[in-house]
Amino acid sequence: MEQYGATTNLSRQCGDVQSQLKVRKLKSEQSYAELIRLSRERSVMHSTLAILQWDAEICMPRGGVKHRGDQMALLAGLVHDRSTDPRIGELLSDVEGSSLVADAESEEAVNLRELRRDFDRETRLPRRLVEETARVSALSSQAWSEARDRDDFKSFAPFLDQTFVLAREKADALGYKDVRYDALLDDYEPDMTTAQLSALFEQLRSQLVPLVDALRDRPKGEHTRVPEREFPVERQRAFAEAAAAKLGFDLECGRFDLGPHPFCSMIGPGDVRIAARYQPGNLTNGFLGVMHETGHALYEQGLDPAHYGTPMGEAVSLGIHESQSRMWENLVGRTKGFWMHFYPQLQQAFERELGDVPLETFRAAMNQVAPGLIRVEADEVTYNLHIVIRFELERALLDGDLRAADVPAAWGERYRKYLGITPDNDRNGCLQDIHWSESLIGYFPTYTLGNVYAAQLFEAADRAIGPLEDAFAAGEFSTLRTWLGENIHRHGKRYRAAALVERVTGNPPNPSALIASLAHRYG
Amino acid sequence: MEQYGATTNLSRQCGDVQSQLKVRKLKSEQSYAELIRLSRERSVMHSTLAILQWDAEICMPRGGVKHRGDQMALLAGLVHDRSTDPRIGELLSDVEGSSLVADAESEEAVNLRELRRDFDRETRLPRRLVEETARVSALSSQAWSEARDRDDFKSFAPFLDQTFVLAREKADALGYKDVRYDALLDDYEPDMTTAQLSALFEQLRSQLVPLVDALRDRPKGEHTRVPEREFPVERQRAFAEAAAAKLGFDLECGRFDLGPHPFCSMIGPGDVRIAARYQPGNLTNGFLGVMHETGHALYEQGLDPAHYGTPMGEAVSLGIHESQSRMWENLVGRTKGFWMHFYPQLQQAFERELGDVPLETFRAAMNQVAPGLIRVEADEVTYNLHIVIRFELERALLDGDLRAADVPAAWGERYRKYLGITPDNDRNGCLQDIHWSESLIGYFPTYTLGNVYAAQLFEAADRAIGPLEDAFAAGEFSTLRTWLGENIHRHGKRYRAAALVERVTGNPPNPSALIASLAHRYG
Repeated sequence: MEQYGATTNLSRQCGDVQSQLKVRKLKSEQSYAELIRLSRERSVMHSTLAILQWDAEICMPRGGVKHRGDQMALLAGLVHDRSTDPRIGELLSDVEGSSLVADAESEEAVNLRELRRDFDRETRLPRRLVEETARVSALSSQAWSEARDRDDFKSFAPFLDQTFVLAREKADALGYKDVRYDALLDDYEPDMTTAQLSALFEQLRSQLVPLVDALRDRPKGEHTRVPEREFPVERQRAFAEAAAAKLGFDLECGRFDLGPHPFCSMIGPGDVRIAARYQPGNLTNGFLGVMHETGHALYEQGLDPAHYGTPMGEAVSLGIHESQSRMWENLVGRTKGFWMHFYPQLQQAFERELGDVPLETFRAAMNQVAPGLIRVEADEVTYNLHIVIRFELERALLDGDLRAADVPAAWGERYRKYLGITPDNDRNGCLQDIHWSESLIGYFPTYTLGNVYAAQLFEAADRAIGPLEDAFAAGEFSTLRTWLGENIHRHGKRYRAAALVERVTGNPPNPSALIASLAHRYG
Repeated sequence: MEQYGATTNLSRQCGDVQSQLKVRKLKSEQSYAELIRLSRERSVMHSTLAILQWDAEICMPRGGVKHRGDQMALLAGLVHDRSTDPRIGELLSDVEGSSLVADAESEEAVNLRELRRDFDRETRLPRRLVEETARVSALSSQAWSEARDRDDFKSFAPFLDQTFVLAREKADALGYKDVRYDALLDDYEPDMTTAQLSALFEQLRSQLVPLVDALRDRPKGEHTRVPEREFPVERQRAFAEAAAAKLGFDLECGRFDLGPHPFCSMIGPGDVRIAARYQPGNLTNGFLGVMHETGHALYEQGLDPAHYGTPMGEAVSLGIHESQSRMWENLVGRTKGFWMHFYPQLQQAFERELGDVPLETFRAAMNQVAPGLIRVEADEVTYNLHIVIRFELERALLDGDLRAADVPAAWGERYRKYLGITPDNDRNGCLQDIHWSESLIGYFPTYTLGNVYAAQLFEAADRAIGPLEDAFAAGEFSTLRTWLGENIHRHGKRYRAAALVERVTGNPPNPSALIASLAHRYG
């Protein structure tokens, strides 16, 4: 009896434990499902901000600006409220440690990891700081735009100081291990540290400055005159859009527009939009701008729509996003193979303008290296030096080692040192970029990270499925696109940037591939 | 002492009453302010639906349709939640009966009256019914579109029955005094009753049928050949947009687009958009479409932006809105005076097509009366007969006197009786309009109400500031626009439709002016 009883008790206990486990499993599954539902809903709400922003840039009449501000402020507030809803904290705790997320690379574990990260960051920021930053950004962007028009840095300086005061506060609220800049960088490139970046930039700087100096002394050929011709904008547009479609941009799920500057806007799955800007006197800029945005768009169109609204359906980081745009712009769109396919079509479109220009002359014109004052017009080699300068200055501003008033001098000094040129005014100097006025501190380095990752990823792709230039020459671009889709796009946020790069290329992020690629093509 | 004491008590009591009144006044003022804040916020949120809808019609790539549905459903849900927030009920009660709303025509009283009306209507609808209606509408629109393409009414019939089942349920939830149809009509034209409408339509029908018959037997002139010419669409567009701007459409606060059908979209103050559709073979339709939408747009641009987001800043009703569009389309855009100003410009734009066509021939071509099967292509005289038919049929459907399956027969019978023609198929018959598939029951009559109001208002304007045709002939349109602004637009919802018409014209709404106008111009 006793034994029987004991057995019964034991089996009853086992049953209890099992049913407790079952209940626990059920609960964590339910919590996970609710978490995903909230995440999707938040994304859908956030995506209405994307359409409001897109419309403001492309369609909205001037008179609509105040109301658009009201719409965006209201929605941004709702999104923030949802992002910091304490219910999310409860749900995250329910799921954490459960068997559902035991495998760190599983969909569930990845989503949980990233949702936890977002929730913790969002809730660490006091609402007051979020609102104050939004308010100062609005005023500061306005002030920047006016200061830039009038080349009047002085009127912008107080806003710049104020922006960095708030950025410091933000970094302190978020927390960091080593330096303040880490906290801000983490917004755009999770896990990347200032120390890693400094080393990377130092390596780049030390190798690029001599390369630029060497190229500066090259004799100028007839190719330097090609860009001065006039290329009718409508034909530029038709050619660039056809090329983007050929690379794989899906027009059933996207569209092209003319905008004040080139950008790519992800509205939602099935709706990715490219805005471009063409100038009659600069064929290269307009076309490469479209190639760049096509790279972004292919990434967005390559994300798994089944995961939309969750980290598994989102891009890894700004740096990885930029790697896609830089790759199609520079490592595809500037190559000989690419133009062997496209140049005959371009000549056909611009018979009068390019009929007498041989392919190599055209490519030489497109790939001229010449230090200039303006980042967005920079060639591939000097581009990263523009970023080094901004990285150094924003770190100094954040640490309080540099005051806004001293920025023009510091800017000029670095342009002389790294690029051998001096800005003629602040408009072509420290007033040229909008980023700081919009409180985007820590954003610039992702442009160079994009170049670094792009070179590494392209090298790996070329090893795996190359020689890619032969494919390009044959008008075959789906090989590369498919490879990127399988190795990068479809993983969403499964791997952080460094892990992804190492997984795909065998090496952690480092500038060797970029330097080798530039030296090979320009050296 | 006693007296002194009594005085003191009295004055203390007075003081108490006064301070109680003060507290009560303060409370009602605070509640009113919160009510207005909530109303504005709801409007801003609702206006993001407007941009999503506009974008879906004008810009969105096909692939974006599912995500757009998710965005709109989420926002519509949020708007509904805000509309039925019990807090609004509390605030309304706080303010009702307070001195703040003692004057029934004051801004506060008007806002309160309309917010109460909206709140009561919204909260009477069960959420389940709202969602079910949205769901059925989505499926039904899809089914309608396919049925229309294939001329297959049978496949649409079950959806139509289902739509009217839900419409009946909605009417019962909303409540009504006399007949069910009243409850639905009230959505689009507050206070208008089925009995009033029936009388109005009977008067119209009895006078229009003989007029149409008489016009049918007129000999055809050379003008009937004008519309058959081909008018290049780009020049139609340029001419129509310039004309709309001349009438007063403010392009700083609006824009033009090409759309699948003409419509006007109010995004917010400072942002009103007109979509138009041009066909090479039909100059009149495209142009009058733009005049029509310009009428809507001038109303929206004439609302007081300071009242945005509250009833005082909103249009009175669909009928009054339509009166503005019909007035600019028909009572301005078809007149001799209007074309005395614009015809030389039109001839210049279409020299080859219209150079040899005298003004009166052109006008005769534009104003041909001929019974046709399609409502949106109908002339001014027969138009209202199309509406009578729909009004009669939807009442019968709502009351259960007519089943969907019998609609084609009932439709054909009425077209024979009222217009003397028989639809050759359902596509040109009962499948031509989208309204029923979108659960818009009670909407059609507002088109005719618009015609009725427009004639009355225009007659009053002509009396007050006319002869208007002389002004039009001199290219002067701001006189009429200003008069409409002062008498209609700037009042927002201060007066309900009937009161507004009576206030401005001296008569309650009635079709005499419309019949007189049509008889005068066409008889």
